[in-house]
Amino acid sequence: MGLVVQKYGGSSVADAEGIKRVAKRIVEAKKNGNQVVVVVSAMGDTTDELIDLAEQVSPMPAGREFDMLLTAGERISMALLAMAIKNLGHEAQSFTGSQAGVITDSVHNKARIIDVTPGRIRESLDKGNIAIVAGFQGVSQDKKDITTLGRGGSDTTAVALAAALDAEVCEIYTDVDGVFTADPRVVKKAKKIDWISFEDMLELAASGSKVLLHRCVEYARRYNIPIHVRSSFSGLQGTWVSSEPIGDIKVEQAIISGVAHDTSEAKITVVGVPDKPGEAAAIFRTIADAEINIDMVVQNVSAASTGLTDISFTLPKTEGRKAIDALERNKHGIGFDSLRYDDQIGKISLVGAGMKTNPGVTASFFEALSNAGVNIELISTSEIRISVVTRADDVPEAVRAVHTAFGLDSDTDEAVVYGGTGR
Amino acid sequence: MGLVVQKYGGSSVADAEGIKRVAKRIVEAKKNGNQVVVVVSAMGDTTDELIDLAEQVSPMPAGREFDMLLTAGERISMALLAMAIKNLGHEAQSFTGSQAGVITDSVHNKARIIDVTPGRIRESLDKGNIAIVAGFQGVSQDKKDITTLGRGGSDTTAVALAAALDAEVCEIYTDVDGVFTADPRVVKKAKKIDWISFEDMLELAASGSKVLLHRCVEYARRYNIPIHVRSSFSGLQGTWVSSEPIGDIKVEQAIISGVAHDTSEAKITVVGVPDKPGEAAAIFRTIADAEINIDMVVQNVSAASTGLTDISFTLPKTEGRKAIDALERNKHGIGFDSLRYDDQIGKISLVGAGMKTNPGVTASFFEALSNAGVNIELISTSEIRISVVTRADDVPEAVRAVHTAFGLDSDTDEAVVYGGTGR
Repeated sequence: MGLVVQKYGGSSVADAEGIKRVAKRIVEAKKNGNQVVVVVSAMGDTTDELIDLAEQVSPMPAGREFDMLLTAGERISMALLAMAIKNLGHEAQSFTGSQAGVITDSVHNKARIIDVTPGRIRESLDKGNIAIVAGFQGVSQDKKDITTLGRGGSDTTAVALAAALDAEVCEIYTDVDGVFTADPRVVKKAKKIDWISFEDMLELAASGSKVLLHRCVEYARRYNIPIHVRSSFSGLQGTWVSSEPIGDIKVEQAIISGVAHDTSEAKITVVGVPDKPGEAAAIFRTIADAEINIDMVVQNVSAASTGLTDISFTLPKTEGRKAIDALERNKHGIGFDSLRYDDQIGKISLVGAGMKTNPGVTASFFEALSNAGVNIELISTSEIRISVVTRADDVPEAVRAVHTAFGLDSDTDEAVVYGGTGR
Repeated sequence: MGLVVQKYGGSSVADAEGIKRVAKRIVEAKKNGNQVVVVVSAMGDTTDELIDLAEQVSPMPAGREFDMLLTAGERISMALLAMAIKNLGHEAQSFTGSQAGVITDSVHNKARIIDVTPGRIRESLDKGNIAIVAGFQGVSQDKKDITTLGRGGSDTTAVALAAALDAEVCEIYTDVDGVFTADPRVVKKAKKIDWISFEDMLELAASGSKVLLHRCVEYARRYNIPIHVRSSFSGLQGTWVSSEPIGDIKVEQAIISGVAHDTSEAKITVVGVPDKPGEAAAIFRTIADAEINIDMVVQNVSAASTGLTDISFTLPKTEGRKAIDALERNKHGIGFDSLRYDDQIGKISLVGAGMKTNPGVTASFFEALSNAGVNIELISTSEIRISVVTRADDVPEAVRAVHTAFGLDSDTDEAVVYGGTGR
């Protein structure tokens, strides 16, 4: 066997029992003849507790010191995990992001990895140790300050280390059995996906699937590192994410990989925009200058009588206030009548590379929604994805209807969710 | 003004309120025109909680990983403190022991500082920042591993940084108003000492006074760094510890600085030792090989009839089991009849450089104990200290009697203890 990188989220190491359970699993991988590198998140609610403390001493904690604070969480979990492994008779050494050579830019709280120089990890592995690495953190190249990678950062650490160490696989252990054809909390008959391509996984992640974050999958695709998403609670095979099916997994590319949904977005409609060149540009330049990422955009057909049109776009609810403020401040420059803000929307997306060669997919998708009595407000498509915006209340029913219509339902209710969610 | 190093213990930063209070005090020092370096311990019970977690995953946590774990505590407190200072409108940067250039040997859990290279601290100060440094921790010179300095390590960090930065003073903030002539919990009329020499402070620390640890005072004496021990809860002047009285403190060297006591030791008596050369050496070589530090040693006058004698010594109770085991294992080689173990003893010490030139001190000390009905079991003296071992139960009464006999009693009950004790 070769080198395996394993990542364990906060829910897998929530308490001493969890740490001991994870330690056993790591030792098993080692006993199977692998060199093992483990990336670990902070225990359970540690990060939230630290954030709470920070808010008590300072109303808007951020930047360098906030990163210094948050990284204490992984320091605790990784040291405990190394101790638990030693207690099982195997040698383990823990490394901070900095010690592990995770070099980032200087954007505190959401730094990006720009290089990984895992010399100390390699050395530790060569001595026969299991190497434990703090997830979610690195050190800035220019200032040598501690940085954090933002949401999902531990997964990215794992994939980046797997790439730098030329690992055979990056195993992401979580509290579900893998990636499902829909969110099992909404669709009881959702099926675990045995294998999914990087491309479909990217679309699912971008459309609201929370098992893997977009950034981590993107990194894995770039360096062609197979990801195996699986549960740290069960011993089951999970979902392989890779460019081609791996080993003895006998799957063809499915026409449809899954149905994702997202209720974290809001819709802003800019009403009464003069229908002339440059108007849309002015709106979206304003939004971009406020550093807000938007998702879908739709422009209504202009009413010939008035020469005015409406432009709608969706964005994270958390950015809603900021976007409205930015547009209002530039109302004169842009030129519009009014703004409408709607945070009672949801997005349903159908993802699958098979769409490209199956022309009936879009029609079937809309029919399924129509039969379920769901009204469509916005539509957006990519080569391997169709997304619609509906009322938030309609989302669960819509997801189930689409899941059934595309034959994704399992014969049994197989999905199990074991714990909370890590970071 | 110049450069000030301030150290705050765990009880001073036990919660968000404490951190905000300490932040205000730091900002005051800065506003007074000082460059300020702050060394901070872990919040309140954090360290105990981490030790507890470690014991849950591994029965005997120790070494490299244990240090990695414990240092998370200071990481949290220092980041929060920096945030709280920023919130008051001043710039602050926090640094780990490693970032601050605290270089140690590789003895995990009780490393010794071998060098301090505070380049990043100096740089931060030159930019006008307040520098916050994690106490209790460093990085090993050879392996670049995180180390901890053991009990009282944060005080040592502060003094070592003060020396390396050529600070005017090292202020040790704690939960009492300074060093007292006796433990205020035992002697209500104990007086705060305005100034005490390094030498007397060293003897007090070695004799059971817990305000400053021996190692920290030793370091301060070597580099001639004045220490100001004071309360973080009150605004009062505390106790200056230095080679000569500082500034406008008008004090002569007192004849007696104070009375210290210690009930953490036990006594072992080796019974029936042949009274011939090499016997004592064999006993204490056995103890030294077990890495146990002993304190007092007394050999009884040999009984001429038997040619046998008894040898008694004191040592920390925590080492008692280990010492007994080591002696029993070597019983044959050493040659003795039996061992007696007694952990119901206490030590009372009178400390003061004035003893050297006041021959009546020893006599007065013994008279005071005798008048209080306290029986003396062992005696040991240095040039500026007399110590006796008594029954543990007699200690409080003995300390009060001696304190009164040497005219140390205050007119009022002035001592106030504000919180718990930090590390």
